[in-house]
Amino acid sequence: MAAEIVNPRSDSTTGAGAGSAPDDAFDPAFALHRGGKMAIQATVPVRNKDDLSLAYTPGVAKVCSAIAEQPELVDDYTWKSNVVAVVTDGTAVLGLGDIGPEASLPVMEGKAILFKQFGGVDAVPIALGTTDTDEIIETVVRMAPSFGGINLEDISAPRCFEIERRLQERLDIPVFHDDQHGTAVVTLAALRNAAKLTDRALGQLRAVISGAGAAGVAIAKILIEAGIGDVAVCDRKGIVSADRSDLTDVKREVAGFTNKGGLTGSLEDALDGADVFIGVSGGTVAEAAVAKMAKESMIFAMANPTPEIHPDIAHRYAAVVATGRSDYPNQINNVLAFPGIFAGAMQVRASQITEGMKLAAAEALAAVVADELSADRVIPSPFDERVAPAVTAAVAAAARAEGVARR
Amino acid sequence: MAAEIVNPRSDSTTGAGAGSAPDDAFDPAFALHRGGKMAIQATVPVRNKDDLSLAYTPGVAKVCSAIAEQPELVDDYTWKSNVVAVVTDGTAVLGLGDIGPEASLPVMEGKAILFKQFGGVDAVPIALGTTDTDEIIETVVRMAPSFGGINLEDISAPRCFEIERRLQERLDIPVFHDDQHGTAVVTLAALRNAAKLTDRALGQLRAVISGAGAAGVAIAKILIEAGIGDVAVCDRKGIVSADRSDLTDVKREVAGFTNKGGLTGSLEDALDGADVFIGVSGGTVAEAAVAKMAKESMIFAMANPTPEIHPDIAHRYAAVVATGRSDYPNQINNVLAFPGIFAGAMQVRASQITEGMKLAAAEALAAVVADELSADRVIPSPFDERVAPAVTAAVAAAARAEGVARR
Repeated sequence: MAAEIVNPRSDSTTGAGAGSAPDDAFDPAFALHRGGKMAIQATVPVRNKDDLSLAYTPGVAKVCSAIAEQPELVDDYTWKSNVVAVVTDGTAVLGLGDIGPEASLPVMEGKAILFKQFGGVDAVPIALGTTDTDEIIETVVRMAPSFGGINLEDISAPRCFEIERRLQERLDIPVFHDDQHGTAVVTLAALRNAAKLTDRALGQLRAVISGAGAAGVAIAKILIEAGIGDVAVCDRKGIVSADRSDLTDVKREVAGFTNKGGLTGSLEDALDGADVFIGVSGGTVAEAAVAKMAKESMIFAMANPTPEIHPDIAHRYAAVVATGRSDYPNQINNVLAFPGIFAGAMQVRASQITEGMKLAAAEALAAVVADELSADRVIPSPFDERVAPAVTAAVAAAARAEGVARR
Repeated sequence: MAAEIVNPRSDSTTGAGAGSAPDDAFDPAFALHRGGKMAIQATVPVRNKDDLSLAYTPGVAKVCSAIAEQPELVDDYTWKSNVVAVVTDGTAVLGLGDIGPEASLPVMEGKAILFKQFGGVDAVPIALGTTDTDEIIETVVRMAPSFGGINLEDISAPRCFEIERRLQERLDIPVFHDDQHGTAVVTLAALRNAAKLTDRALGQLRAVISGAGAAGVAIAKILIEAGIGDVAVCDRKGIVSADRSDLTDVKREVAGFTNKGGLTGSLEDALDGADVFIGVSGGTVAEAAVAKMAKESMIFAMANPTPEIHPDIAHRYAAVVATGRSDYPNQINNVLAFPGIFAGAMQVRASQITEGMKLAAAEALAAVVADELSADRVIPSPFDERVAPAVTAAVAAAARAEGVARR
């Protein structure tokens, strides 16, 4: 699926004049980013008059007229049905936080090339110069006729929840906040395999999630949907429970569908006897608290670059350890999910990405390594070429089964 | 500058299910458009963990931080400074009129691949689901952090004038309505060479423009700026003159800087003794009126597909005949201008495309064929490879000379 790699601008004069810019020669990241990481490519020839008269005027007019008469043809005769807008406002970028739209662009370009490389999906970075919820929604709605899907990226909580919900209500193309659902899908896939490896049913497991932001909330939802026994979500003030008076709307909703055990107190309290720790917070957890977890526990400490529990400590207590880092085994990496999820959804022209499609993605992702499970291999490598086709097929099938596919 | 031509989707299942779609096998335009005409291409490798750690996390974070500290670095380390948004609302598409955003997409994709093919400029179609002037402006302003330029396309008059003006006031990147200025630049270039060929100074010429829409108004402006002796603009009701009470704001402005001769009456009245006819209206002009033009006249009948004056008739009276069609000599084709204009402006990070830059583009374009002029060759072919580099260099130099360049 990989496009040929060329960088026509890398040896150009692009950099001249950027007087105080970092010295590319001494930093491979800057050298690689010079001129950007992506380009547009024509997929039809424009070599001569005849080519031009088909791809542009007058030939194009027939195609335009056909779409005007039969609007769904836009999916067949333009790139719309294969192109995703990667939309951000630059407020929650990596570990950097609110760095604004321009500074977020390298991440959005990176996301775009991962869409292409791993899912064969075209993607365009759209970093918006507003952080106002209503303005973001209106802007995306207005540009939506040009895109087959909307990937929301690095928009801070709690606005990300409302933006995703309201956009999906107004648009008939998939709207997907990857920081929520991509992370949730990959986490669930790893958890499925970790449970299988340690011979436990999902219903037997009690999980504790540290972090009640975009990822934490989405992980809590998908774990409950997948049938995990119980889930407690913790924010900085401790366990999110219905008796707390300081909850946002979203956290109140979380309190409603999690914590069947009625736990109160701190993260450490929640971990007492818990089977699963899922860290998406960036805090740190004391070893003493880890020690109180159940036997054969699973520790997914996904904060980057510093996991909430260092893998060396986690391994003293847990049967399975995962992180967000590429230099340890079991990397929970969103790239395992989002390219295939969008590819599958868009292949069948799904109007949305349902919970069932996300669950199907997690199952398919887990199944890729089902026959080769080990404590260091509960999730495939991001470069496992079986992943994207498996996720794509499962998501497309689920979309059809759930009645949201249009072909 | 051309990217390699591949269409990975053309043999895919993209078309399945489009039951009543046109039969591609019988129409080359539909066959060519299947799956769209463009794709995203990664320009850096993403083959392994090391690649990923440079192009995405954690390596990308350094680049983001550098841009957050020094915002202008976004131009060096992302594709922003080489990517144009091709923005439309689908209200004035080719000869088809108001066909809406989706149906306009094949034209916008065509434009995008011409940007790439002829100017080496990346371009992304953004067809908006609104025709409201304020909404279009707000939407483009909000997405502008992601782009190095805004090409407005096929937005109907008179909204196109206000949208372009207000956007340029609010943005520090070039905003350019190609239907206006692209056409105007190419027309002026052809007229320069036609005057040279027939040994007349521009100041000696009296021109009549049929059409007071986007193209007509812009042509009138650039001809006056270039020093044409006099220009009369005609709309459906005749010559645009200050004494008319039915003029829009824009036409009132036109009346102010054209028609020094104080002509009133019909298009036919204006043509009496005129040296130049420029048709951007789509109407037809009677041969009797053409016959009344001055000797050695120049007839640029640019309506597509039916020129206002058929070339066979025009040749009976005129020294130089041009059309908008590719099957006659002297095709006035915007593709001769917009790729090089944007390439030149963006190369020097111009904050806008000034009148001086447009005039420089026209001069450079005319100069390409200055040594090989003939009545059938007052303008280069769209496939003349000398064109884009010449226009690019001239526009970049003019941007520096006018003080709008940032490097």
